[in-house]
Amino acid sequence: MTEAPPRAAASQSGMRRQNLALVLRTVATESDLSRADVAGKTGLTRAAVSSLVDELIASNLLREGPIAASGRAGRPGRTLALSDTGPAGFGLEIGVGHLGACVVDLRGEVRARRRTEVHNAHRAPVAVVRELAALAAAVRTDAEDLGLRPLPPVLSIPGLPGQRPGIVTHAPHLGWHEVAIGELWPGPDLPRLENEANLGALAELWSAGAPGNFLHVSAEAGIGAALVIDGRLYGGARGYAGELGHMTVHPDGPHCPCGSRGCLELYANQDAVLRAAGLREEPGTDPVTVLTASARAGHRDTTRAIEQAGDALGIALAGAIGLIDPAAVVLGGAYADLGSWLLPRIRRQLETRLTVRPFDVRTVTASPLGRSGPILGAALRAVQEVLRDPGTLATSSRNSA
Amino acid sequence: MTEAPPRAAASQSGMRRQNLALVLRTVATESDLSRADVAGKTGLTRAAVSSLVDELIASNLLREGPIAASGRAGRPGRTLALSDTGPAGFGLEIGVGHLGACVVDLRGEVRARRRTEVHNAHRAPVAVVRELAALAAAVRTDAEDLGLRPLPPVLSIPGLPGQRPGIVTHAPHLGWHEVAIGELWPGPDLPRLENEANLGALAELWSAGAPGNFLHVSAEAGIGAALVIDGRLYGGARGYAGELGHMTVHPDGPHCPCGSRGCLELYANQDAVLRAAGLREEPGTDPVTVLTASARAGHRDTTRAIEQAGDALGIALAGAIGLIDPAAVVLGGAYADLGSWLLPRIRRQLETRLTVRPFDVRTVTASPLGRSGPILGAALRAVQEVLRDPGTLATSSRNSA
Repeated sequence: MTEAPPRAAASQSGMRRQNLALVLRTVATESDLSRADVAGKTGLTRAAVSSLVDELIASNLLREGPIAASGRAGRPGRTLALSDTGPAGFGLEIGVGHLGACVVDLRGEVRARRRTEVHNAHRAPVAVVRELAALAAAVRTDAEDLGLRPLPPVLSIPGLPGQRPGIVTHAPHLGWHEVAIGELWPGPDLPRLENEANLGALAELWSAGAPGNFLHVSAEAGIGAALVIDGRLYGGARGYAGELGHMTVHPDGPHCPCGSRGCLELYANQDAVLRAAGLREEPGTDPVTVLTASARAGHRDTTRAIEQAGDALGIALAGAIGLIDPAAVVLGGAYADLGSWLLPRIRRQLETRLTVRPFDVRTVTASPLGRSGPILGAALRAVQEVLRDPGTLATSSRNSA
Repeated sequence: MTEAPPRAAASQSGMRRQNLALVLRTVATESDLSRADVAGKTGLTRAAVSSLVDELIASNLLREGPIAASGRAGRPGRTLALSDTGPAGFGLEIGVGHLGACVVDLRGEVRARRRTEVHNAHRAPVAVVRELAALAAAVRTDAEDLGLRPLPPVLSIPGLPGQRPGIVTHAPHLGWHEVAIGELWPGPDLPRLENEANLGALAELWSAGAPGNFLHVSAEAGIGAALVIDGRLYGGARGYAGELGHMTVHPDGPHCPCGSRGCLELYANQDAVLRAAGLREEPGTDPVTVLTASARAGHRDTTRAIEQAGDALGIALAGAIGLIDPAAVVLGGAYADLGSWLLPRIRRQLETRLTVRPFDVRTVTASPLGRSGPILGAALRAVQEVLRDPGTLATSSRNSA
């Protein structure tokens, strides 16, 4: 809703650009189509399709496969597929406990990936950014060795990007305020910034079959939420929609560092669950791995702590679902790993609290992507842009050249 | 977002229909325009505008006023205005404590209105519907005496309309479940049903200058909310969006008749505030009038009860605002009358609880329409439909003839 639909250019080049997109989308949606099949499905002439396909192959967006086993009359054509070389999505990630870089090809498959476990909370932004840029350069080389050409990267951050590009306005769990990534970034591949919960939601939409209207709730150090309406991220009036971690669960509860009381994060973020389980975050260990291991081993304090988090999440989600009526709720990030213990409690709270307007609690599920959602969403963002309008590719490669 | 934009008919009559709408909207938006001014603003020829204006005058949608004091060259024309006779919006209302009927002209001015104070809770639907139909017939006569021709009515209900027309699925404060208004309605003017909170929100949008993205929260017997996004009601995935009254405020609070615990309605609906103030609902008296009179007289128990309701509302609204980031929150219905006592407490809660993403608490205001919102929204709905597409008028008058 925040993005306006592209206006149809009333020119011949505008028309060709639209038809390039149409052909590319058609091949992306269905496998084993020949040029003749594409003509049949799009209503374009075979000659036009052939010219468009030739251009898409020359740009390394499509490739030709084996001869199609077509039932049609006439000479069977070669099948078309999205290219597994050439332009590729490039995602970067700053987490509170890690850095990541990832390249996906046009088919959405992860082809190169590196991850460093490192505590970034309250670390100097310049050191974090330098380390990330080095990781990005290494993954770019990995990808180029495979014949891929990474597009300008998108960076997932655990906070709010600013109105101006390259600014992190507020990332409380990193302790960052008004950090200018753009000024600290060494060398090429300066990334666009996006909130991790938003990117996690887009990954669900693009690669995990989420419906067009859903609420995505994820946890890393904090709790993030993102709302997808009619297949698009919903930003709200000023781009601030999706705050769930500081929704009040217990109005008279303990004080939260944010200044409020009884916020959801006090009951349901990683640290809160670790503390309630009587576990400690050891340097070099991943808190979610520690929690799942302990829960799987049947430690009652741990399962009880996760279940209490589930109750708090259920209370907050009941309010959110009543207000916005999503078709589904997807739990991502660390919540996906903890789904077996969280989901029964969340669903029970929803059954108790959502009685006036019906809601099917089975539509609340754990993400199949888990903690890979944000970096995958970051990498897929450029791929989606190319698939929607391959004409942008010419422009963006020209700009970055 | 739930309504698709009208598809442009690729025919000459479709074109004329669009141009009729364009001319009508142009006159509705700005006063004292002549035919020549309309031609200038729309880009249509003077001849085309004259033909379209003639048709709109013949349909009684426009009228001509005095000579325009135009600064243009050429013969000054007569000013055009929306008609104050002819087609008119017709709103009906079933409240828990009243019945209402109202006719507004195309300019949005209320021209005929009747209201009966009557306790409808747990009353037999057939009796309520008969009394409302009689009230509707009387207001229709009032309006016809003024030269108005009421369009098919819209009925505001304190509950959820069903998927099939004429069905009230659930109106808890009336005690109604699956009531078929359509089957009980005697004679003509069978209304379309719509939820009162939704209609209250539309009235704010259409006649009280609310921005395109806002949250409307109102109270009559229950608490209703409606979400307007990009100038349209947001229904959610299944039309159930806008449940706020049963948002949990205190998870371990008292049991609610809905089956949950600690719902907002237990702290902030009319009955709860009356009870907390130590006042009783007397038959034949309006609880909100009782409350405002007592608060104005400075009764501390009453002001404290309203302020407590404000705290509960503020807690719930903080969650809602964080999630959806509206540009404004409008308090309607009984809350508008209680605004002086509610608003300071709501704003204080928001200041305390919304710290992570900025929000200007001055954008939370009491509606200037107050308790007239829903019936006004019901009456304005048909007016808005005519203004958006005057072509529907020909169809709907033919259908209802």
